[in-house]
Amino acid sequence: MFEIVNPMDIEKCSFEIITELLGGRTFPPEQEPIIKRVIHTTADFDYADSLVFSPQAVERGLEGLKKGCHIVTDTSMAMSGINKTALGRLGGQIHCFIADPDVAEEAKSRNITRSMVSMEKAARLEKPCIFAIGNSPTALMELYHLIQFQKVNPVLVIGVPVGFVNVVESKEQIMTAPVPYIVARGRKGGSSVAAAICNALLYQLSAR
Amino acid sequence: MFEIVNPMDIEKCSFEIITELLGGRTFPPEQEPIIKRVIHTTADFDYADSLVFSPQAVERGLEGLKKGCHIVTDTSMAMSGINKTALGRLGGQIHCFIADPDVAEEAKSRNITRSMVSMEKAARLEKPCIFAIGNSPTALMELYHLIQFQKVNPVLVIGVPVGFVNVVESKEQIMTAPVPYIVARGRKGGSSVAAAICNALLYQLSAR
Repeated sequence: MFEIVNPMDIEKCSFEIITELLGGRTFPPEQEPIIKRVIHTTADFDYADSLVFSPQAVERGLEGLKKGCHIVTDTSMAMSGINKTALGRLGGQIHCFIADPDVAEEAKSRNITRSMVSMEKAARLEKPCIFAIGNSPTALMELYHLIQFQKVNPVLVIGVPVGFVNVVESKEQIMTAPVPYIVARGRKGGSSVAAAICNALLYQLSAR
Repeated sequence: MFEIVNPMDIEKCSFEIITELLGGRTFPPEQEPIIKRVIHTTADFDYADSLVFSPQAVERGLEGLKKGCHIVTDTSMAMSGINKTALGRLGGQIHCFIADPDVAEEAKSRNITRSMVSMEKAARLEKPCIFAIGNSPTALMELYHLIQFQKVNPVLVIGVPVGFVNVVESKEQIMTAPVPYIVARGRKGGSSVAAAICNALLYQLSAR
């Protein structure tokens, strides 16, 4: 084994290995740190093909973060994985309403998912927000409807839910909305992918 | 899209699709719920081949949890993904020391990773523990040394770090230790995989 125990050295070495394993493959320069960080997080090179960026998506995300926009996630796991120190340095905060008692109660009474209600609650935040959806296709579907009805205008939608029911469809749908997006096409994704994309944006702007 | 918004229905439907996509493939019955939950969490069928179980690993994990053993993780993300209600019903608690100020301080002074120091700290817990390592190969390597020096005797090691530096090696190493293990061979894994394996064990024993 290598004798590397400094986390920043390990990360640097990992990115060099990823670059090597990608062969001569190139990406648009603004997308490259995001694609590589997702591969770093998952060890899954499928993301080199499945990540789709709307025009200017990265620029919009970076501009928003620079101005102190907030980040909304659909799971506490994604919230936990996002670097809150880096976000805080830029003036941003993170929100996840999935575990709120009022969200659970309303979801039960309306017979919809907590994820859907948590998006409605997030749409009422007064700050510009990046929405990072790593788990729930119903959250992404609800977000699509909220955008269509002009109830929310996200700075950027990171649409990377994972799974087998409505996941592929929810991602294809959000790509038709008038909003900047970064989407992992297909079934794969997850809270760690959502967090990795947020962190890849943050690390271009802020110390850790 | 399907009109399913009940989370338990979505999960049931997902597992049926996974079973279908696995074709006629069968697994040892005690391993099957774990393999399928990891695929459910990642949408990645590689885990049908890469998950390796030592003899009796699942039984040891279930017995431990029944008796109220605790769970130690290497990341707050994995901690966040494990169902603490289900664990608590069995009498267990969850621990993650990675963000503790004393751990950071000691890691800096000894020039080793916080993950390594967090394992040393966990080894001093007096309760029997399952160790679920989803991120850091240095945590898994340190755990191996602690086991070799009889400083800790885990109920079960879930060894699923992800990445490119020392990850494969750390997993091969832990499989030579005298301890029950569930390992995702190769580079893939992650905090969400570690949490999924813990939850797959918990859901066989406890309501959510």
